Amino acid sequence: MKPLASFSYSKDFTDKGLAKFGDSLLNFVFSLALSEYLGKPTGERVPNSSLALAIEMAGLRKLAPPRSDKHARGDVAEAILAYAWLEGVITIEEAVQIIRENLTEDVTHFTRKKEAIGKALAVLYREIGKRMGV
Amino acid sequence: MKPLASFSYSKDFTDKGLAKFGDSLLNFVFSLALSEYLGKPTGERVPNSSLALAIEMAGLRKLAPPRSDKHARGDVAEAILAYAWLEGVITIEEAVQIIRENLTEDVTHFTRKKEAIGKALAVLYREIGKRMGV
Repeated sequence: MKPLASFSYSKDFTDKGLAKFGDSLLNFVFSLALSEYLGKPTGERVPNSSLALAIEMAGLRKLAPPRSDKHARGDVAEAILAYAWLEGVITIEEAVQIIRENLTEDVTHFTRKKEAIGKALAVLYREIGKRMGV
Repeated sequence: MKPLASFSYSKDFTDKGLAKFGDSLLNFVFSLALSEYLGKPTGERVPNSSLALAIEMAGLRKLAPPRSDKHARGDVAEAILAYAWLEGVITIEEAVQIIRENLTEDVTHFTRKKEAIGKALAVLYREIGKRMGV
């Protein structure tokens, strides 16, 4: 799917609108990846702690304001994904594939789930960071 | 974007997994349509009452169990969209376009918002129902 950017946006990863749009994109991409991984349709929201872990591991922590909390870092991660998709840096298909290939069975584990999601998303964010040159 | 149905599902609109996946798809499609309508990125979750109104107006109320409440009808509506997309009955681009073209400025109104969303979604569900022959 090509980006449908018939609206304006800027490269501001603290933009609340970009984070809100990114939230819907991220949850769709993750739900699709999880459905493919489990072999049946399902949907799940990505926890902020997983997002914070993902951008930390991907070396993109620097894109979030200093001393920002887990929630603020989650918003930044959502804005980054939104921006990358709108710019054509990454497609939905690619994002789904990267997440699916990096999920482990811990994703169904009550306490280890958040970390498993974070680690799979870290691979996606590392790729996005590389492609954006940040 | 072509459906990526590398998982199995059945035509059961009361399936909870299909509804959960449909929830993520619907909120993404709606957020993209709303962003295009408003001209800037944003994201919003579709209220159950809007979904209940949409399937009522589209003549698809019969696909929900009798005496089901607003929440259960919302789940059925989400499952219908998931199924339609997975089957290739409708693409994300088409769904976004139909919603965007049928939104009105009431969507930014505090009390009239839910009805405005429901009316725009009704057009989408009418099209889906027509294409699925239900």
